[in-house]
Amino acid sequence: MRLDHIGLVVENISEFSEILRDLGLEQMTPTEVEPIQKVSGRFVLAGEGQEVYIELLEPLGEESPIRNFLAKRGGGLHHLCFEVEDIDKAAKQLVEKGFEMVCAPVESVGYDAVFNRACEQSTRIAFFVVSDELLIELVEKGH
Amino acid sequence: MRLDHIGLVVENISEFSEILRDLGLEQMTPTEVEPIQKVSGRFVLAGEGQEVYIELLEPLGEESPIRNFLAKRGGGLHHLCFEVEDIDKAAKQLVEKGFEMVCAPVESVGYDAVFNRACEQSTRIAFFVVSDELLIELVEKGH
Repeated sequence: MRLDHIGLVVENISEFSEILRDLGLEQMTPTEVEPIQKVSGRFVLAGEGQEVYIELLEPLGEESPIRNFLAKRGGGLHHLCFEVEDIDKAAKQLVEKGFEMVCAPVESVGYDAVFNRACEQSTRIAFFVVSDELLIELVEKGH
Repeated sequence: MRLDHIGLVVENISEFSEILRDLGLEQMTPTEVEPIQKVSGRFVLAGEGQEVYIELLEPLGEESPIRNFLAKRGGGLHHLCFEVEDIDKAAKQLVEKGFEMVCAPVESVGYDAVFNRACEQSTRIAFFVVSDELLIELVEKGH
């Protein structure tokens, strides 16, 4: 596993992007819609040459799973995402270890869209609650 | 700026470390006390060869500034820390841009202790609220 990105839920991606630019974080993807997860998202490079991103997330519609997080907690740092080579295998291992899978491996068209990846097999993601304190995402990048 | 670590507030560092080991994150420093910030902390490498860490933080005493975060929100992802070369200069720039400095640059003996750094000038850190959604830390490593 390697850390791929840190998910950060915000009220407004455009406004928050300006804050990150003020901090000196200027390399960012366009914003795209992720219909399955009901979010809009953009990735901001966390540091020169690091290949770790801050993922800005904004709820898409009233049914968005992050709507509640924004309303109750005012947004903020939401999850850590780790890249794996084989998401089915990794997800099975985590379930066997007793971690709660809250979203089974599913396609992420938004990921491939923001990074402009032309994939035969699209990127897939899954989510796990590993404790009350931490939600993690797994990602197997499209190829 | 480069991303140095992600701060994660937990109820119990030892118990949470076991969860991270179960996830395959096994490279971690010892746990040390940071008296000025009133926390105990340990750093867990987020991925092979990435030089990005997850910092596990546990409140130290009733006056710990993260005590409230743990009580109200049940802990969780707390801040992003970026390394800078000159913390006084970087802090001044952020203040001039209107960001709220909640902790001015101060020594971090815990940081040098966990990484076993022998420094003439110890590591220094500062904290800024950059929006309702995000707290960031700056670190200038001791040398």
